[in-house]
Amino acid sequence: MITPTISTTRLADRASELKGSVIDASTALLASQTHDIVRFAMGAPNDELIPTEDFGRLLGAPTEGRFGYGASEGEDALIEQIIRHQAERGIQTTPDRIVVTTGGMQGLDISFKMIVDPGDTVIVECPTYTNGIGTALSYQANILEAPMDENGLVVEALPDLVAASGRTPKAIYTIPNFQNPSGTTLSRERRERLLELAEQWDAYIIDDDPYGLLRFEGEDIPGFLALSPGNPRVIQVRTFSKILAPGLRVGWMDLDPHLREIAVNAKPAMDTCTSVPMQTMIADYLAEGGLDGHLNRLRSIYRERKEAMVHALEERFGQNVTTTNPDGGFFLWVDLTGRYADVDAEDLFPLALRHGVAYIPGPAFTDSATQRHALRLCFATSSPERIREGVERLGTALDEYVETRAGVSS
Amino acid sequence: MITPTISTTRLADRASELKGSVIDASTALLASQTHDIVRFAMGAPNDELIPTEDFGRLLGAPTEGRFGYGASEGEDALIEQIIRHQAERGIQTTPDRIVVTTGGMQGLDISFKMIVDPGDTVIVECPTYTNGIGTALSYQANILEAPMDENGLVVEALPDLVAASGRTPKAIYTIPNFQNPSGTTLSRERRERLLELAEQWDAYIIDDDPYGLLRFEGEDIPGFLALSPGNPRVIQVRTFSKILAPGLRVGWMDLDPHLREIAVNAKPAMDTCTSVPMQTMIADYLAEGGLDGHLNRLRSIYRERKEAMVHALEERFGQNVTTTNPDGGFFLWVDLTGRYADVDAEDLFPLALRHGVAYIPGPAFTDSATQRHALRLCFATSSPERIREGVERLGTALDEYVETRAGVSS
Repeated sequence: MITPTISTTRLADRASELKGSVIDASTALLASQTHDIVRFAMGAPNDELIPTEDFGRLLGAPTEGRFGYGASEGEDALIEQIIRHQAERGIQTTPDRIVVTTGGMQGLDISFKMIVDPGDTVIVECPTYTNGIGTALSYQANILEAPMDENGLVVEALPDLVAASGRTPKAIYTIPNFQNPSGTTLSRERRERLLELAEQWDAYIIDDDPYGLLRFEGEDIPGFLALSPGNPRVIQVRTFSKILAPGLRVGWMDLDPHLREIAVNAKPAMDTCTSVPMQTMIADYLAEGGLDGHLNRLRSIYRERKEAMVHALEERFGQNVTTTNPDGGFFLWVDLTGRYADVDAEDLFPLALRHGVAYIPGPAFTDSATQRHALRLCFATSSPERIREGVERLGTALDEYVETRAGVSS
Repeated sequence: MITPTISTTRLADRASELKGSVIDASTALLASQTHDIVRFAMGAPNDELIPTEDFGRLLGAPTEGRFGYGASEGEDALIEQIIRHQAERGIQTTPDRIVVTTGGMQGLDISFKMIVDPGDTVIVECPTYTNGIGTALSYQANILEAPMDENGLVVEALPDLVAASGRTPKAIYTIPNFQNPSGTTLSRERRERLLELAEQWDAYIIDDDPYGLLRFEGEDIPGFLALSPGNPRVIQVRTFSKILAPGLRVGWMDLDPHLREIAVNAKPAMDTCTSVPMQTMIADYLAEGGLDGHLNRLRSIYRERKEAMVHALEERFGQNVTTTNPDGGFFLWVDLTGRYADVDAEDLFPLALRHGVAYIPGPAFTDSATQRHALRLCFATSSPERIREGVERLGTALDEYVETRAGVSS
């Protein structure tokens, strides 16, 4: 008879880097709450902003063969629609550059899998999308955090940062448009400079752009490949999560054909292929031409919501918070200042939840547990009225926190 | 202006191990053929063996919230159904042991990701499921191939193999029931011995069992966890691909709660969560109770097809081939002997395709490019009549190969 024992030292070194995600964990925490909560936490559109009826109709149609295995690189019909969809937006691409992925997240996983050896340096924005860091860490990357300002990643700061770290980066992970979590957009000058630095360092730019099509103010800034056509260092990671629905788990990569071949080869040993019924449904939806109207609707709704949130924050907090004012996307970033300058956003969270508002604390978007006096708010999910209510509740929680702590420390 | 250059030396070491899959590549090759081909190659059920009408009906229903993000560990409704479905088959499990995966393939990816550091030894069956090797290689495993016989992996041979290799294995990757590609089933004695060896080596058993419910002859052999309840070394990788449909890309892992926590933490940095509409559809299908009837139908059809194939092979080839005679699953294995003993199954492939029959050559199931005089046939996809036609075509190709080669070499 065997007495089972187990020693966790027999796990891979990287197992200790598989830490999950504060954001995903907060989904579970939120789901367990039974009182009314204004949800500024998750970056996910509600059912009312998803073409659920069209999706149901397309999913209910008896499309032949959609339950069988698909090709590693993705279904031809979807690749064709992706190329057409990009062309309509002035982005020329070809089938030998496209691989369909299981959401944008798998695009990041494949990117870091192709590039990162243990100890390799990856530059990330601070704050940034947590699961992007998580993926790089799962390949044991050395994370080098770089500062952000209102024009996105402070590219001018990178040479000194890199020199101080003593290691040339192998990749720069950036979310150039309406960044998650800050909402800021990388300026054209900085994009150009980043391309130069990537060349100098022989590094890749992992260009993660889930929100680019959700610009509701201002003018598009050319993407990395528009500025440097055919540049093989630019790996474009794209997704349908934010423009259609996140539960579908379908995205794509658009990258140099040589790298794309490696990416296609990686797929069979990851998840064989991306869900075929999901690919078929999206291809059918795009072929019907519904996307443009849907995007226009989203942009108009998100603009209204962003404005409602910015105004409500100004009105309620005045000089006691500093916020970004995004031209698109889902999120804005709040730095606590003045009266709230000492508030720890993680400590505040349970209190805020009790008062009926949820957000994501700043440290969740870092590898360094910095950004303690900051938080991310998602304006995309709630109506203007609910946004005003949520900001009011946040104010109540902040005031109570400040008053209680003042009492404690005095 | 930047002149883009790229040096592939800047990719991760593992990139050279991302080789794709001969099997997945053959799907593409097959798809490009326009003449009539009997398809013994892919292990995928046809639409007629998939409950497409039920799936269409369930997918067409307006289930709320299914297009939003799901939990990392999987949807509660599906986890509940998985536990019920297992209990009905005498397997007791609990929610803290289950994580939903994007097909069985992702279960393998997560398993190897948790366990394998570069250079770690993984024992695999020879022949085995190619993408299993591919995943282990993507974490730079050292693959140790072990022989198979009519009772599956020759476990008795492992101690000598391991001693000769000079390295204690960190994992043993096995497909115990109706193995892909051989069709053989690991005997009870060998399962018990393998559990002892895993204990001795402080190694994990990655128990990949896509076909276990498709037994159409003989009696079930207890699984590893039935033989060693609660053994934390046993990682069970399961999938709906072969019992429902492969295009859905939904499977699950059933493993020690401590390991399961790491597996759940790995998901957000891989693909966030598994497609929610796919999970919802399967949960609904299982809740309706359709699975048992469907499995009975599959077993009866697959038994008939397996028998048709074994008889056709005997009749056409007699002593010139040796085949396995599986009690379940999708595949049987053909060793070329006698008159065909020198036939190279890879060389034969284009000729067979020209004559209208497809299979997978033996070397595709190895890391060592051995098994050159063997091939895998899938009996699950074709009707008995088509199977007889396909075997006849294979005979024509083999005879032509032998006669042509004889002419060339004389």
